[in-house]
Amino acid sequence: MWRDLLPVGRAPGGGYRRYAWTGADAECRAWFREQATARGLACEVDRNGNQWAWLGGPASGGDAPGAGDAVVTGSHLDSVPDGGAFDGPLGVVSAFAALDELRERGARPARPLAVVNFGDEEGARFGLACVGSRLTTGQLTPERARELRDADGTTLPRAMERAGHDPDAIGADPERLARIGAFVELHIEQGRHLAAAPGDHPVGVASAIWPHGRWRFDFHGEANHAGTTRLEDRRDPMLTYANTVLAARKKARLAGALATFGKVAVEPNGVNAIASLVRGWLDSRAPDEDTLAAVVAEIERAAAERGARDGVRVTVTRESFTPVVEFDHALRDRLAGRLGGAPVLPTGAGHDAGILSAVLPTAMLYVRNPTGVSHSPAESAGEDDCAAGVRALADVLEDLACR
Amino acid sequence: MWRDLLPVGRAPGGGYRRYAWTGADAECRAWFREQATARGLACEVDRNGNQWAWLGGPASGGDAPGAGDAVVTGSHLDSVPDGGAFDGPLGVVSAFAALDELRERGARPARPLAVVNFGDEEGARFGLACVGSRLTTGQLTPERARELRDADGTTLPRAMERAGHDPDAIGADPERLARIGAFVELHIEQGRHLAAAPGDHPVGVASAIWPHGRWRFDFHGEANHAGTTRLEDRRDPMLTYANTVLAARKKARLAGALATFGKVAVEPNGVNAIASLVRGWLDSRAPDEDTLAAVVAEIERAAAERGARDGVRVTVTRESFTPVVEFDHALRDRLAGRLGGAPVLPTGAGHDAGILSAVLPTAMLYVRNPTGVSHSPAESAGEDDCAAGVRALADVLEDLACR
Repeated sequence: MWRDLLPVGRAPGGGYRRYAWTGADAECRAWFREQATARGLACEVDRNGNQWAWLGGPASGGDAPGAGDAVVTGSHLDSVPDGGAFDGPLGVVSAFAALDELRERGARPARPLAVVNFGDEEGARFGLACVGSRLTTGQLTPERARELRDADGTTLPRAMERAGHDPDAIGADPERLARIGAFVELHIEQGRHLAAAPGDHPVGVASAIWPHGRWRFDFHGEANHAGTTRLEDRRDPMLTYANTVLAARKKARLAGALATFGKVAVEPNGVNAIASLVRGWLDSRAPDEDTLAAVVAEIERAAAERGARDGVRVTVTRESFTPVVEFDHALRDRLAGRLGGAPVLPTGAGHDAGILSAVLPTAMLYVRNPTGVSHSPAESAGEDDCAAGVRALADVLEDLACR
Repeated sequence: MWRDLLPVGRAPGGGYRRYAWTGADAECRAWFREQATARGLACEVDRNGNQWAWLGGPASGGDAPGAGDAVVTGSHLDSVPDGGAFDGPLGVVSAFAALDELRERGARPARPLAVVNFGDEEGARFGLACVGSRLTTGQLTPERARELRDADGTTLPRAMERAGHDPDAIGADPERLARIGAFVELHIEQGRHLAAAPGDHPVGVASAIWPHGRWRFDFHGEANHAGTTRLEDRRDPMLTYANTVLAARKKARLAGALATFGKVAVEPNGVNAIASLVRGWLDSRAPDEDTLAAVVAEIERAAAERGARDGVRVTVTRESFTPVVEFDHALRDRLAGRLGGAPVLPTGAGHDAGILSAVLPTAMLYVRNPTGVSHSPAESAGEDDCAAGVRALADVLEDLACR
């Protein structure tokens, strides 16, 4: 099962480029359908492009999101640019494998069970993460989603259309959420907490997700000839950008937060031309929302102050924001108990589980990552740990759905 | 004549994107042929893709480059990304217009005259400036030229082939250079020296071109998740790059030189991924070669020092270097005298005239640029100043070729 998926969307350097609504994404979706069909699961695509594979047919609905009886597990198959093989796919592969494990155990589900593949979790193409789950919960409106554009100017609706999905259908899906009583997402740990913890813990349980967001900083200067324009006549936005990158690191360090500029776009981006525009995207996260707001405000202030010296105008646009997520305490404790005292950990990474936790009892399992490397081809987890993850997920599903 | 050329390769923002061996380049070349044909000039393309339009047929050759009797004028038609309308084309348009002016004056050339359009002067596509003139003089070997690649990985030979030019033919062309006795390039000034000079000087004469070069700085870090990797576990090359940008500015300021990072490429360039690689291109120039070498060495040292702190490996590749160019003093003084005491100015910008000056008596005329803006759509020169440039170039050609 894992072997079929491995080559899809893999770049020559070994990294994955599985972006929403591309050919690689379609191949991943075909793989999902094959896995569902091979197990006799009923496969469907919802209005927002998320894929579902139901054991025993779709669940009957409750009155409100989270009131249904279905137990759902899964993750996503898309990737960041040059991402690793595990972030996302491990949760989907493990979901199918856990169903196999339950069957081998002879466990008889008393509730509907489903595997889900959420669309566009990483936001690599359209700049907004968790588009599939955000649309479904109503945290992203169809109007705003229709304005999303990729780097080539292609809108999300156009990309959906080209991939054969009806963009007019997108929007909140409370009936679907009302069928579900619990969602459990298994994910490779993005960090070394499990590896560094005393004892031997291949699997952990999530406590919370730090609040996080993305801010686009536009540094507006003036294009000019790099070989003839006197330094004092320049309005060079690269200087303001560079200063802001260093300021972001410093402010985050002082506050115990994270701040990263990992994406840049420069115009005109010529060797002998002073830039007219530098765009830098800030990713920032912190243990609580007040700290996050303070860190970003300080970075904005540093950018504006340096911009004034450089003759560069700075505008800042918040492109996304996800409040702190505390996973359902009862579900979290039930999982940790069922798994015999697995470590309970927070994370700085956003997940579809974080989006769904606003409306459903939601939990996450992490599989140990020996190097902590993530969003990179070097991301990895041991075979034994992955197998332990499958067993843990099967334990949890058995506990939730088979009694 | 000017009107026909204006729309070619113009982007929606008003800037020009006329890159070597593209469709826009082919349109510029077609325009050149039309202008030559309309004047009864013999048009040819040399082995390196430079276009020549001969009045009275190609010149007879001398024994060595610069020994011939032909007087050649011209410039280039390609542009930097989002460049202005004048840098390059003004010199070619003025060359044709100066021939018209000579005819109107009834001047009878006693020597062969030619207009030239040098290919790929800006180096916007393949990263090396003045490829056409460098190949012709032998300053760029065919072997090295064949290794040049654009951002899409297309090699220069492949790009030439697609544009209908035989890449096997490229290389030094001493026979052609031996036909020429003098080359004069007219260019818009890239700076405000003429505008700021006392008196009213629409046209100036070049004294020298500062030594200049391009260095590619590769900052090798480690891709990782921006939301989960502790600051102390990161090897973030964006920090080293940012520090190097600021160091370059400072070192250049202290040395009276210029240093600019205007082009950046980031891998994987995702909002929530710490970069694995940041590539920044340094353009640096100084009044003399020792100063330039010292400034670049200091920037390299600053990058390496910061890299050691960030866990980032820095490699530096010199992609091009042009030594200081002192234009032929006799020719320069003759032009300045003929133009009644026009100002004589240095510049930091490279030109084909700078390349040719290594083997031929070469001179340059500058046309006043009121704002000094260059390599930008805002680049401009007044209509009267452009006309004065044409008259000055006609005066010079008459002086050099018609007696």
